[in-house]
Amino acid sequence: MDLSTIRWKDNLIRIIDQTRLPHELTYLDIDNIFKLRRAIRSLQVRGAPALGAAGALGLYLGAKRIRTKDFFRFRRKLLSAYEYLASSRPTARNLFWGLERALRSAGRAADTEEAKELILQEGLKIIEEDKVSCRKIGIFGASLVRDKDTILTICNAGILATVDYGTALGVIYKAREEGKRVKVYALETRPLLQGVRLTAWELKKKGVDVTVICDNAAALLMKDSKVDKVIAGADRIALNGDTANKIGTYNLAVLCAYHRVPFYIAAPHSTFDLSIKNGRDIAIEERSPEEITGIYPKKKVAPAGVRTFNPAFDVTEARLITSFITDKGIIKPPFLGNIRKALC
Amino acid sequence: MDLSTIRWKDNLIRIIDQTRLPHELTYLDIDNIFKLRRAIRSLQVRGAPALGAAGALGLYLGAKRIRTKDFFRFRRKLLSAYEYLASSRPTARNLFWGLERALRSAGRAADTEEAKELILQEGLKIIEEDKVSCRKIGIFGASLVRDKDTILTICNAGILATVDYGTALGVIYKAREEGKRVKVYALETRPLLQGVRLTAWELKKKGVDVTVICDNAAALLMKDSKVDKVIAGADRIALNGDTANKIGTYNLAVLCAYHRVPFYIAAPHSTFDLSIKNGRDIAIEERSPEEITGIYPKKKVAPAGVRTFNPAFDVTEARLITSFITDKGIIKPPFLGNIRKALC
Repeated sequence: MDLSTIRWKDNLIRIIDQTRLPHELTYLDIDNIFKLRRAIRSLQVRGAPALGAAGALGLYLGAKRIRTKDFFRFRRKLLSAYEYLASSRPTARNLFWGLERALRSAGRAADTEEAKELILQEGLKIIEEDKVSCRKIGIFGASLVRDKDTILTICNAGILATVDYGTALGVIYKAREEGKRVKVYALETRPLLQGVRLTAWELKKKGVDVTVICDNAAALLMKDSKVDKVIAGADRIALNGDTANKIGTYNLAVLCAYHRVPFYIAAPHSTFDLSIKNGRDIAIEERSPEEITGIYPKKKVAPAGVRTFNPAFDVTEARLITSFITDKGIIKPPFLGNIRKALC
Repeated sequence: MDLSTIRWKDNLIRIIDQTRLPHELTYLDIDNIFKLRRAIRSLQVRGAPALGAAGALGLYLGAKRIRTKDFFRFRRKLLSAYEYLASSRPTARNLFWGLERALRSAGRAADTEEAKELILQEGLKIIEEDKVSCRKIGIFGASLVRDKDTILTICNAGILATVDYGTALGVIYKAREEGKRVKVYALETRPLLQGVRLTAWELKKKGVDVTVICDNAAALLMKDSKVDKVIAGADRIALNGDTANKIGTYNLAVLCAYHRVPFYIAAPHSTFDLSIKNGRDIAIEERSPEEITGIYPKKKVAPAGVRTFNPAFDVTEARLITSFITDKGIIKPPFLGNIRKALC
């Protein structure tokens, strides 16, 4: 199976439409920033690393449509495309990182045509880098996995969250390539069910032994000593190690501390935001009530007019994290110094 | 609003069909034990205290149909009705307690007709006792609630889990009757969504300020100091205080311990099973995979053939429980002695 969550093809961004999974594997071609922003907001494409690539290639889609040859006016229009895409979702670091890299690359150009070309090249480079970096995460992470380990994960930090390999799930794929037998518990991950819809789907396709549980059942499994480690992805990691990821990740980290289960975050260096000192400064997206009142996609389950609170992410304090599995190696505590050391 | 979750009317058990809520308030009349067992298994009627009443009245429905006047043969057929109903769900103590009380009452009869009458009277007595006992729980529990408290609850331990008042939610109703302002967070409670379908529905009907969250978001609320206490119901409580309740309750208790939030279990004395020393001896029902793979009621969300693990309950260790709110008063630790003292 050779899946690409996002790729550049025929002058278009081609993504797997993740809102159609697990029922249909369909692709969506994106040729303008409006369609891309809609795809990001509706989670047709999602996952921090995949959003890094989407951001950079998206800026190229924006740049391509700018007609002026005047570099100053081009730059102004490019910035507005940048801001338009940057406003699609607030939490995942990689979206901004991809956009910024693409924007910076344009600064090296002599004219608008070269700027466009440099932006495209930067986007393609990010795609290639993500493939490599996920495989490095896999190698470093697999060194922590023992034969017959049972690993619990939340949301989807797999092929479908990256270009083609995964971060947390990449660790599992690599451990299996090394001949280790691994059993996975996938939290279904309310409200949008990325665990049961996406993680279970790709793990099954890859032949991994996966069991889906409701988010509520993780504690029971840990109490019964059925979980050897938890590996989650990340949307943004602060300088001190505080980590924003899918709502429910912090809950898992507390459960791990209580049950003495190692808790790992797997993420590429691009998810670290060294400009942010700690988790309190990470913006948390609050999404629409309909994600709770109507179960995915649109079955009504709530009484009419009920109030909801629907944060898409939470922040896990660094002290609850055993270590980070990154493309630059395993980062252990104390994180404040070690993150800087590993990444700078 | 005057709701009766279960009542005896026109020689029938009349229940609110909880599988139709929150969309429709409809009643279901039950005139035989087959229909009752189906109603219990499909959760048309649910909640430990309500099941106590259902069990006793159900045994009467069974007894009524026994034609023989021979007491020995009557007794044998009665026992088989008892066992048939007792096999509907394994965890909630009250179902067995109600059935046992009804069965024992028949032992005092001189003939089969009197036995039938005594069973009915016992069922009606349980109904009346539940009304009183929930109000007592309310009074004792309300003494723990302060003005402007924010209370988080899981599943439904309200009107719809009892005859007409509730245990955990009864505490909230009583606190409001006393003029205290209370805000409630209701966990939606996967897989069957009793929190959003039932708790949010009845709290809204009662005019209580309720906000529904995904189960995954409770930890974030506690971290942000937005929860003053958690009050949950119970399905069965062992002699040492270990408590079986809806899957996810144990998770909440661990979160409460970590965030130093008081964690209360509200339940009538009939939920305590003094024959069980600790939680390890409580049978935990595992329900069908379809509850996870198809979101309530039948929307498919999982890849075909995915494996699931779907325990309906978990057991919270007594040491995580701040106190029990019962109809016999507040029971504080050490539970091993104090439960016996309060209930025997």
